[in-house]
Amino acid sequence: MTPTTNEHRLQALGLTLPEAPQPLGAYVPAVQTGNLLFLSGMLPIAGHQALALGHLGRELDVPAASRATRAAALNALAVARHHLGTLDRVRRVVRLGVSIATHGDVRNHAQVADAASELLRDVLGPDSIGARMVFGVASLPLGTPVELELILEIEP
Amino acid sequence: MTPTTNEHRLQALGLTLPEAPQPLGAYVPAVQTGNLLFLSGMLPIAGHQALALGHLGRELDVPAASRATRAAALNALAVARHHLGTLDRVRRVVRLGVSIATHGDVRNHAQVADAASELLRDVLGPDSIGARMVFGVASLPLGTPVELELILEIEP
Amino acid sequence: MTPTTNEHRLQALGLTLPEAPQPLGAYVPAVQTGNLLFLSGMLPIAGHQALALGHLGRELDVPAASRATRAAALNALAVARHHLGTLDRVRRVVRLGVSIATHGDVRNHAQVADAASELLRDVLGPDSIGARMVFGVASLPLGTPVELELILEIEP
Repeated sequence: MTPTTNEHRLQALGLTLPEAPQPLGAYVPAVQTGNLLFLSGMLPIAGHQALALGHLGRELDVPAASRATRAAALNALAVARHHLGTLDRVRRVVRLGVSIATHGDVRNHAQVADAASELLRDVLGPDSIGARMVFGVASLPLGTPVELELILEIEP
Repeated sequence: MTPTTNEHRLQALGLTLPEAPQPLGAYVPAVQTGNLLFLSGMLPIAGHQALALGHLGRELDVPAASRATRAAALNALAVARHHLGTLDRVRRVVRLGVSIATHGDVRNHAQVADAASELLRDVLGPDSIGARMVFGVASLPLGTPVELELILEIEP
Repeated sequence: MTPTTNEHRLQALGLTLPEAPQPLGAYVPAVQTGNLLFLSGMLPIAGHQALALGHLGRELDVPAASRATRAAALNALAVARHHLGTLDRVRRVVRLGVSIATHGDVRNHAQVADAASELLRDVLGPDSIGARMVFGVASLPLGTPVELELILEIEP
């Protein structure tokens, strides 16, 4: 049987979500307006500690940056579950933004971003796939290599 | 007679839209939620080939970056038409984001961004003009110089 | 008595809003769709003159970048009031984005971003706090060090 709910898919993937990260300042992790849930920028952190540091194209190659991106995506799912009570209330991704700290002539941002896109698709289901924006930025909070933007559509 | 629909205005401008670009990864070109249409980041590409490469302030000057920005805006219109069936269902731009890859002490981002703003205004009409954000970023997918964010309000 | 409206809180803080900044190009300062108000990117400018120039980590330290961030946040409030007639129609921040021009190995973006978060909280009230994204970018329009994104939820 194919798992048909988000929580079942998460379990079937053998994934455990981390603690939802606490804000680094005067903001909240998520805001719901209508049936949209806006998450704060999600970093690869545990507590307030960076799980990865550096820039794609200098300290980090695509596999290392992809691991950091996946960690940020797990944090995003943790925040969504914390806010909603269950991931089953997530209907789909409206937009995923992936900002990667890059150095020099980097061109393969999309490969790194796919680490988030694919994790979200695997957990939230094939009909959940959203629009996406990908940027190479100069630096990110705490020196982390990636920050995710997420707007989710949720069940009323 | 002044053209009064988006498709008529496009035609009167002598513009032909390109093929709507295919995603570079695990995402979809556009997501509609309520009466908002969120487009994926729009690049100056044809197929998966960059139409322009480099950074404003190094390889590209304002006219060259503006041409790339216009190409990205045409792709955005192509995606909107592909998703909606016709541009006539676009009521206005809610927000346009223009991220320009820059090198060094660049200050004239707004001139480049106007290439997208003006094209969208000319096609979607003077009442369609939206809010705008403009950034200079470190790098963009495929080495392209500009990426557009678009949130459109559409007819129900 | 604790002030209980946004305009009263602004007054109690002794703050006077600047003139709402005029667009630098073919866009409008704010767009309302449903009960969301999308502001254009807000810079630390007065008229079209930059109030601060440079990058965090080079010309500007955290206190200087924070002052610029606060100036951009005051511009945002001015635009919101201009659009809505009164700040009392602002219910809360849905999302605040803070893009800081950075140079080198900057990690303390959150401190700078708090200058905007705290001002908005002080004026719009403790229940108004939104989600937040913070980025270090390569450059910003006019050479300014910070640009704010704001999506506000407003009274119908």
